[in-house]
Amino acid sequence: MSPYPQDPFAWTGAALEDRRDAGLLRTLRPRPADSPLLDLAGNDYLGLSRHPEVTGAAAEAARRWGAGSGGSRLVTGSTELHAELEAELAAFCGFEAALVFSSGYAANLAAVTALSGHDGLIVSDAGNHASLIDGCRLSRARTAVAAHADPEAVRKELAARTGEGPALAVTDSVFSVDGDAAPLAALAAACRATGAGLLIDDAHGLGVLGDGGRGAPHAAGLAGDRGTVVTVTLSKALGSQGGAVLGPAPVIAHLLNTARTFIFDTGLAPAAVGGALAALRLLRREPERPARVRAVATGLYERLTAAGLEAARPDAAVVSVRAPSPEAAVGWAADCRASGVVAGCFRPPSVPDGISRLRLTARADLTEDQLTKAAGTVIATAPAARP
Amino acid sequence: MSPYPQDPFAWTGAALEDRRDAGLLRTLRPRPADSPLLDLAGNDYLGLSRHPEVTGAAAEAARRWGAGSGGSRLVTGSTELHAELEAELAAFCGFEAALVFSSGYAANLAAVTALSGHDGLIVSDAGNHASLIDGCRLSRARTAVAAHADPEAVRKELAARTGEGPALAVTDSVFSVDGDAAPLAALAAACRATGAGLLIDDAHGLGVLGDGGRGAPHAAGLAGDRGTVVTVTLSKALGSQGGAVLGPAPVIAHLLNTARTFIFDTGLAPAAVGGALAALRLLRREPERPARVRAVATGLYERLTAAGLEAARPDAAVVSVRAPSPEAAVGWAADCRASGVVAGCFRPPSVPDGISRLRLTARADLTEDQLTKAAGTVIATAPAARP
Ligand SMILES: Cc1ncc(COP(=O)(O)O)c(C=O)c1O
Ligand SMILES: Cc1ncc(COP(=O)(O)O)c(C=O)c1O
Repeated sequence: MSPYPQDPFAWTGAALEDRRDAGLLRTLRPRPADSPLLDLAGNDYLGLSRHPEVTGAAAEAARRWGAGSGGSRLVTGSTELHAELEAELAAFCGFEAALVFSSGYAANLAAVTALSGHDGLIVSDAGNHASLIDGCRLSRARTAVAAHADPEAVRKELAARTGEGPALAVTDSVFSVDGDAAPLAALAAACRATGAGLLIDDAHGLGVLGDGGRGAPHAAGLAGDRGTVVTVTLSKALGSQGGAVLGPAPVIAHLLNTARTFIFDTGLAPAAVGGALAALRLLRREPERPARVRAVATGLYERLTAAGLEAARPDAAVVSVRAPSPEAAVGWAADCRASGVVAGCFRPPSVPDGISRLRLTARADLTEDQLTKAAGTVIATAPAARP
Repeated sequence: MSPYPQDPFAWTGAALEDRRDAGLLRTLRPRPADSPLLDLAGNDYLGLSRHPEVTGAAAEAARRWGAGSGGSRLVTGSTELHAELEAELAAFCGFEAALVFSSGYAANLAAVTALSGHDGLIVSDAGNHASLIDGCRLSRARTAVAAHADPEAVRKELAARTGEGPALAVTDSVFSVDGDAAPLAALAAACRATGAGLLIDDAHGLGVLGDGGRGAPHAAGLAGDRGTVVTVTLSKALGSQGGAVLGPAPVIAHLLNTARTFIFDTGLAPAAVGGALAALRLLRREPERPARVRAVATGLYERLTAAGLEAARPDAAVVSVRAPSPEAAVGWAADCRASGVVAGCFRPPSVPDGISRLRLTARADLTEDQLTKAAGTVIATAPAARP
């Protein structure tokens, strides 16, 4: 007998009830175009997503090139605008070539699967982003999960490998939940010592870290390194949508020839390409923006910890503050919102360690007044019991 | 000793050489904004991607809402524009609720993984799109691959299941390579008889099949069916970018709460949302467009087969023509291009059956003259030896 004679999806309703009972139900909260709230939850680190030069370029690209790219990149979905963005992005970050995807998620799936393979080994940091983890799951290689930010653990796993296939270490440059930086130079050394490749997801580093925002790999001296491949997203500091993989030309050509999320996906929409390209040019012209976002993050951290809150010193733009429980985190975020400040709320199961936190993100365009208001609100609404 | 002491990615260069030697090397061919070529390779079925109403709405959305959505849909990346598109798309296709993703690929990964699971069974058509296959690979369910377009094979696999988890049959509505339609009504009957859910990828059906373009599930009487979930892309008939899942409200809420490519991905860019919404409204206002694209496809098919070419009668907008070999297919497509017509060229490994073909796509906005030119060119350049 079928367990679902009437409604084969009835179990989804039951699962939702369980979530509701556990206080873990998520709902969407669509925002208006002009919200009066102070946004400390998004990833628009440089404040470029609403910059008139960026929105104007996105609008112009839609009018000139179409609302969609029209097909897969290998068929009709590659415009000269895509090629321009790829060339300028690669040059900016110091890599030989770049390939644009419809999202950072798709870029990560592509890079992990295409650069690993049968009889190979992937060593993946325990704190890596979901898209890298899904890439490992899709790969035909064996995946070893290494302790968080531990180059010696990575070296050991790489040195112990037995298969004949490629070996690849995979890490976020800045971990998305806590905002801490990966030890990239030490990881690169571990890879060199063992003949492995290094794949760095610089989603939260591009535009924030490195000389003029060239990213964490650039800051670590890895720009142009033959053994390093970098993924980025166009949706955070570049204020747009999409992702890219940067690396040696043969690696990029290999991705173009084999990566399923490249071959079987529609090319990124021209508006997103045009917006990201304008943001990149603005960043080149205004190289002080990355330093400003880092200063805002540090200022936020200092105010919060001075008030006794438990936060990690930010390595980039993300400031993570501990909450005593999932319920307290939800209540805290709700109280912040009621006072006009939007804070991210991370709790199980989206946190690897089970610890709930508020996740605050700095923006280069926050004024001192806004920073003061934001910090004051987070402090004033903090739950009484701290972890 | 490491096999790659100097360059851990040297194997990618060697793999490219092998591809080149086998005549399988792919390269990008970025196109200008105003190409003089006649495009029979893209998926802009209704010709809406360059429609001024659609590009204007995309441009306006970028200006009003920003070049990017700014964050994950669950944090700050949901705008009222996303909610509007979700409501209108669900209503148009006849489903209770919809959820928009950054791509159709992401929507498929989400739907397959979130609606299957531990100790469950997925029965997947052998001709399914790569994104559905990747969804099966990411799922914790067992996957059984069923013979192409064979409802009895699906029923048998579903009936033989042993686990206690959910059972799900997964199929394209229109298969992307050959353009043939799936037997949806029979598949739904097989699912009902066995208590399984049915997941339909209507990427090539929306805007082309069903009353006014409401899609293949609507045409099969499955709109609003409690046991049916549908994925669509915004990047083909709607001329934009993105994807969506449509279904019963609890299923959509379950996806929102659990699907990794929803939770951990930046929300679709406002320009893509605005473009797709304008295209949907245009389609509602001009319900004759879907019939026109089907008539163009049939006209193309009739001319090609009258000239002795081997093509499958199109069920939607895709006309697939057999080529005698991968080399012949490549040469054929190149000759078409030299004569001003862009045709898709599918060959191993992107074809499930190893047969190379030209893949031609109809567009609602092709004139009779353009249709005559397109068919004439494909016929005049056809390889001498036919399979
Ligand atoms: C570390 C990291 N990598 C990848 C992604 C995915 O990028 P995208 O949102 O462009 O798909 C994100 C977040 O969205 C991220 O935080
Ligand atoms: C059948 C099918 N499903 C899904 C997709 C993926 O949609 P998208 O390009 O929007 O990611 C495609 C093609 O791109 C397709 O042909």
